Amino acid sequence: VPHCIVEYTDNLVAEGAVPQLLQKLASKFRSRGDVFPIGGLRVRAVRLSEYVLADGLGDDAFVNVTVKIGAGRPLDFRKQFFAEMFEIVQEHFAELFSRRPLALSLYVEEADKDGSFKANSIHQWLKSRGS
Amino acid sequence: VPHCIVEYTDNLVAEGAVPQLLQKLASKFRSRGDVFPIGGLRVRAVRLSEYVLADGLGDDAFVNVTVKIGAGRPLDFRKQFFAEMFEIVQEHFAELFSRRPLALSLYVEEADKDGSFKANSIHQWLKSRGS
Amino acid sequence: VPHCIVEYTDNLVAEGAVPQLLQKLASKFRSRGDVFPIGGLRVRAVRLSEYVLADGLGDDAFVNVTVKIGAGRPLDFRKQFFAEMFEIVQEHFAELFSRRPLALSLYVEEADKDGSFKANSIHQWLKSRGS
Repeated sequence: VPHCIVEYTDNLVAEGAVPQLLQKLASKFRSRGDVFPIGGLRVRAVRLSEYVLADGLGDDAFVNVTVKIGAGRPLDFRKQFFAEMFEIVQEHFAELFSRRPLALSLYVEEADKDGSFKANSIHQWLKSRGS
Repeated sequence: VPHCIVEYTDNLVAEGAVPQLLQKLASKFRSRGDVFPIGGLRVRAVRLSEYVLADGLGDDAFVNVTVKIGAGRPLDFRKQFFAEMFEIVQEHFAELFSRRPLALSLYVEEADKDGSFKANSIHQWLKSRGS
Repeated sequence: VPHCIVEYTDNLVAEGAVPQLLQKLASKFRSRGDVFPIGGLRVRAVRLSEYVLADGLGDDAFVNVTVKIGAGRPLDFRKQFFAEMFEIVQEHFAELFSRRPLALSLYVEEADKDGSFKANSIHQWLKSRGS
């Protein structure tokens, strides 16, 4: 953890700059490497090509970010940190949001501690990179 | 919200009429626009091409619908509404279900209120469309 | 249920042998057909092509397995069974894990009983196959 999944409708490919959004989200997580170890950071996008939105009559679009984190971070921290992350999403799409129909959302979920298993060799590679 | 994700195996592409299913699911949500604001409706499909099902020996198929809704709808409403939605899924696939191995499922999840962030310009566009 | 989703980064396509991993995971579930009826087994993979991992500077990779099961299996069973399943994942990638940066994870979730709907004609087909 953290896992971060960015679903987006393919009518945003041309103007949405999703690769840059992934970079911004990753940077935000890295800014709190004390809480979210950098070696565990996994941000990815899933492009959607089959969808029906709202009344089905417009060129509507959406971006939905789902974050899964380990259990145990204080609620106050989570509310603050992810509100800031959502501001990053809103800023990224501010211009598009103002001129086309666009739904933005972000959901945070905690993994069940008893149902989590992991192994990660990225951590040690980071040391050799000096990260 | 609502978010609605329809995963389906690609051996249903030819006969499954998934685009029509998405339309039917969207219509069902819209029928209760008092509970699920139409501007927040996001139904999408995800086609699967790598899978192993059941004993691995047949041309088995599945459709799995996952719905994420905001917290706070009464349990009785949810049970009734999504039972009706699942009937729509079953009716859509009734003929296929009777002649080939097919697993249908629908799961409803509530978003964590403290972990939900959203902004949506679709709502105001709906007004200009007269929806 | 069970549903089992294997997300993997596309830099593992050449060496990750993901189709074989799906077979191994399916076999593990089938070994406890008394707990997880074989007709309900749905293992699939989702290949990711847009991602930012860790510090963003290496050819990092990940495999993330998410399992959704019905409610009601005892916690002790779950912890034991999915620890064994995760060992299968680790063994599958042992050689890659030792020589490249790779994050492996497995999460288990229980479906909400009141939000689960299903119908499955695979079960009866299994009988005709002798499975």
